[in-house]
Amino acid sequence: MAATEVRPYVVGIDIGGTNTVFGIVDAKGNVLASNSIKTQRHQELDKYVDELYAELSKLIADNCGIDKIKGIGVGAPNANFYTGNIEHAANLPWKGVIPFAKIISEKFGVPCALTNDANAAAVGEMTYGAARGMKDFIMITLGTGVGSGVVCNGSLVYGHDGFAGELGHVIVRRENGRQCGCGSCGCLETYTSATGVARTAREFLEKRASEDSLLRKIPADQITSKDVFDAAVQGDVIAKDIFAFTGQVLGEAFADFIKFSSPEAIVLFGGLAKSGDLLMKPLVETMNNNLMPIFKNKVKVLFSEMKDADAAVLGASALAWEAK
Amino acid sequence: MAATEVRPYVVGIDIGGTNTVFGIVDAKGNVLASNSIKTQRHQELDKYVDELYAELSKLIADNCGIDKIKGIGVGAPNANFYTGNIEHAANLPWKGVIPFAKIISEKFGVPCALTNDANAAAVGEMTYGAARGMKDFIMITLGTGVGSGVVCNGSLVYGHDGFAGELGHVIVRRENGRQCGCGSCGCLETYTSATGVARTAREFLEKRASEDSLLRKIPADQITSKDVFDAAVQGDVIAKDIFAFTGQVLGEAFADFIKFSSPEAIVLFGGLAKSGDLLMKPLVETMNNNLMPIFKNKVKVLFSEMKDADAAVLGASALAWEAK
Repeated sequence: MAATEVRPYVVGIDIGGTNTVFGIVDAKGNVLASNSIKTQRHQELDKYVDELYAELSKLIADNCGIDKIKGIGVGAPNANFYTGNIEHAANLPWKGVIPFAKIISEKFGVPCALTNDANAAAVGEMTYGAARGMKDFIMITLGTGVGSGVVCNGSLVYGHDGFAGELGHVIVRRENGRQCGCGSCGCLETYTSATGVARTAREFLEKRASEDSLLRKIPADQITSKDVFDAAVQGDVIAKDIFAFTGQVLGEAFADFIKFSSPEAIVLFGGLAKSGDLLMKPLVETMNNNLMPIFKNKVKVLFSEMKDADAAVLGASALAWEAK
Repeated sequence: MAATEVRPYVVGIDIGGTNTVFGIVDAKGNVLASNSIKTQRHQELDKYVDELYAELSKLIADNCGIDKIKGIGVGAPNANFYTGNIEHAANLPWKGVIPFAKIISEKFGVPCALTNDANAAAVGEMTYGAARGMKDFIMITLGTGVGSGVVCNGSLVYGHDGFAGELGHVIVRRENGRQCGCGSCGCLETYTSATGVARTAREFLEKRASEDSLLRKIPADQITSKDVFDAAVQGDVIAKDIFAFTGQVLGEAFADFIKFSSPEAIVLFGGLAKSGDLLMKPLVETMNNNLMPIFKNKVKVLFSEMKDADAAVLGASALAWEAK
């Protein structure tokens, strides 16, 4: 046992409200093998951990053996990097403060680090994706909500308490702003998440009642951002305006983010990020129109280079390279 | 010369539009000696540098000798930490890009680092002042303009190009915002700088024309933030409302800054910061009202612990401890 240990792989675990996905990853970001369990099957934490341990141990044994694993990274809601705890996560069955990193580290005998999913995505992008080699960038995830991870000087910004990077809750409309689940009104998330886009659709359709739109074929409360995208691609004017508005709100917010940390790039992830020029053109134009000369036309807006299916596991796994 | 060198002092140089102040500082932030020259006396850079070199050399020779100086730190407008250049500073007589750190380092034979004055203030506060021991805080300078320096993970955030931390130009009013010198409308600076407060005074006095106020004794275009403070202290209702509004705008902006970097504290410097509860009460209340539960009532708002007379030199000098 005196020889230098070579541990070429890491494990990523992404705990979502529905599924817990996990996989073994190499230094280049290839996923060797992955599997998943249902997060909600067990209301008791112990039983969930037992099932996760059994399934992940099997995956590891079948592929490389635990001796080749350098560490385990976990992405989870309300996860605190500093403490290794999951704290009062509304979408998970186990309440209170859970010392998840400690539990996993003890079970497997390797270091474990954890953070929230948007932070994990940022570390993933820096390690394997669109932000390789960058020391300053901002990750924005456009999903059911809007998440973010901020990287400055080559390190993720966790803040003094581990909760930095809640850019989805920056206020973008101070007057008559939309009510957000966080308690505030006018949060970025209420306009530019997938649900925000659906909200904009309902607003626009009501305000422009005399105008025809493909979206009127769908019951208003069932319209999704995907429906808006499909209509926009077919040339629907209201649908295109919904994307223009969403891009404008994002562009205004990004201009303010740039004044904070002057990133080399802002990297977008999530379904909405795939809307292409429909979103990107108004976004980049508005962003640059809202910047002073020293920042104008200098900041790249990029798409994530992670494949959707692997992104969550890759992001979580990237944390593990530095886990102690 | 084989003995370990002991260099217990640093030099700070603060280049303002009117005066260039410089001093010798020890590790505890005591200013051993200081002096100043007129920034605008020489339109040619060479002559300015010659005068600065002569005066600073004399100060050093009279006090400790250059062998005891570890480095020189410079605070200047439009100063770029990465390049060591002062770039197109509107308020300085020398145009274009000036490799100021290189010039000073070569003249004195010691390392020199430079950054803008708000960043220098942040490093000063972290080294000698209210932010000692903090790894995450935000410095806000409330003067003629609003400047900022952001510290994350114990390091100043310079961004990919050296220009991070322009929080005075974050947009706080998207509709009918005040025109800012930077070209945008609605910047924080147009509301919460000393000149912003004077602007608010003129607006409030015009809008509330039937209401009496001590401020009506002063010609509207001559009202200063100091006049507003004096009137507020005497119980003037409009003057107190001007501070309440200023505090509210700052509090809203600070809540968004917290969502970015989750700092342990926000440290205020400058004349307005001395308005005490008139500004602080509405500021802290608004800030906490605009935060989600995970951030509420956790972030301290502190005053700078630097004496006004020494602050600029101390801030600049603090940079020099790490200069290479």
